[in-house]
Amino acid sequence: MTRTEAASWLQQQDHYCILTHRNPDGDTIGCAAALCRGLRALGKTAHVLENSQFTARYDSYLSGLTKPHIEPGDTVISTDIAAESLLPYGEAAAQSGSIVFAVDHHGSNTGFAPNLYLDPHAAACGELIYDLLTELQVAISPEIAACLYLAISTDTGCFQYSNTTANTLRVAAALKDAGCDTYAINKIFFGTKTLSRLQLEARLTESMELLADGNIAVCRLPLQWMDELALTEDDIDSIAGFPRAVEGVEIGVMIRQMTNGSEKISMRTGPRYNASAICSHLGGGGHAAAAGATVAMEFAAARDAVIAAIRAEGIEV
Amino acid sequence: MTRTEAASWLQQQDHYCILTHRNPDGDTIGCAAALCRGLRALGKTAHVLENSQFTARYDSYLSGLTKPHIEPGDTVISTDIAAESLLPYGEAAAQSGSIVFAVDHHGSNTGFAPNLYLDPHAAACGELIYDLLTELQVAISPEIAACLYLAISTDTGCFQYSNTTANTLRVAAALKDAGCDTYAINKIFFGTKTLSRLQLEARLTESMELLADGNIAVCRLPLQWMDELALTEDDIDSIAGFPRAVEGVEIGVMIRQMTNGSEKISMRTGPRYNASAICSHLGGGGHAAAAGATVAMEFAAARDAVIAAIRAEGIEV
Repeated sequence: MTRTEAASWLQQQDHYCILTHRNPDGDTIGCAAALCRGLRALGKTAHVLENSQFTARYDSYLSGLTKPHIEPGDTVISTDIAAESLLPYGEAAAQSGSIVFAVDHHGSNTGFAPNLYLDPHAAACGELIYDLLTELQVAISPEIAACLYLAISTDTGCFQYSNTTANTLRVAAALKDAGCDTYAINKIFFGTKTLSRLQLEARLTESMELLADGNIAVCRLPLQWMDELALTEDDIDSIAGFPRAVEGVEIGVMIRQMTNGSEKISMRTGPRYNASAICSHLGGGGHAAAAGATVAMEFAAARDAVIAAIRAEGIEV
Repeated sequence: MTRTEAASWLQQQDHYCILTHRNPDGDTIGCAAALCRGLRALGKTAHVLENSQFTARYDSYLSGLTKPHIEPGDTVISTDIAAESLLPYGEAAAQSGSIVFAVDHHGSNTGFAPNLYLDPHAAACGELIYDLLTELQVAISPEIAACLYLAISTDTGCFQYSNTTANTLRVAAALKDAGCDTYAINKIFFGTKTLSRLQLEARLTESMELLADGNIAVCRLPLQWMDELALTEDDIDSIAGFPRAVEGVEIGVMIRQMTNGSEKISMRTGPRYNASAICSHLGGGGHAAAAGATVAMEFAAARDAVIAAIRAEGIEV
């Protein structure tokens, strides 16, 4: 669908129930909340379906918008969901085949919705919701602007990541003009860390293994640290990127112990290496710069398997 | 001067020598380098005066632009310098009274230059250089765009700080359009930390004193850590903001031991507190959100003096 077609379609339906994805992040939540508010501004009935994985720091964005169940006659739509396999646990997971409209920015979108507004060049799905609301002539209130800024800033690491485009920055400028207090959002999502997170980073720093003259860094996150440091899922958000953020490290590896005894390997690589190719030797995969695998091994064996996988790609360790 | 007047003035002179400020940062360096390149594009002779405090990570921006001495007949101008007392050590410090043109964004600018293009609403001086180069119809090359993006991104913490405006984001968008690889710059300045820096943060985390139910955090940076962790000035850039970046902390205090035996106190506060008022009890001052003082005391006495100063403002500790 073009933007105009998508906007026109949204104008014609009512009783919207908006779905977010599993392990919800700022983009899916901000998009759902902004679209919900925008549809209400057009006189529609609209809700965001509750997701058992919503965490506390998103409460203010979702306040007054959610409902616990899909009702008969609801128009079920989704934001930032690439595939039905990514629907959240619970009621939403049963919605396979019933999502009639989707807005997304993942090139890998499976086309599960008969009406799809997709732009894989958008850094965040929030850019597309901004476009749609503008097309629908919805006034961007400070509340809508905050939701969209949440979406765009979190999906681009506050404009740091390589997915950021000139359009991303222009939409952010428009959201500031609309009255969004970007600093307040930035402070919570980028300028603040919990003490637990800092203590985790301290332990990771002290136990980090540097190999190949600092080209490769391997960190381990043992399960017991979750309890010892009272770590929440929010606390370990993006922790997989920690080893690669050390100056000089081109292959960063995080090995996280899982509750079932396996180890989850997350790899981030610089432009000279292909994380997906390396992880394929471990039965995993992903993108060139970010990939992973899960192995049924103890840490020491998992660490050795990672080194072997790196060597298998002809990289010196 | 208006933008038009400033641009017209720059058109009329030649043989520019551009000064940066003491403890040079990305804004003063990026501005000087961008302006130098822009003036050269207009056919002028232009150089940036070497500053003994330039650090390695700015080398690529300054390459081919610097010269060691001011020469007779040079038109001496400055970027991002608020007062002559902030001129760098060495030759530039002797330039008092000879700077004929200044571009700046500090409201506190002393008016030391007879020709001043000042906009205190600009988050970074880089926004003003962008305006001037646009007014001068200089094509923004990828190299100029990189210098200006360096200036703007570093002075706003990659658009995180409260000084960021819609214009800041729009200029950044224009720089992306001009071919700036913003990700490469972000990775170095915001997405990467040296191992020494991470080790410092680990020690600060482990030795942090939390008071008043986590409302106040006090960190110490002993002189011996500089050697033990091989810390450079780049490594400790913005470290004063570290305690305040802990979730829940509204008054963050960094006490850094100086080579002369005194302790340098840096305070960062949330909107409910006035760092400048607190630091005035210690013989210091600054802004409401960021202030400091230097005290001729040992650490323990300095820490107690800070607590007393906070109490003197009626704040519970």
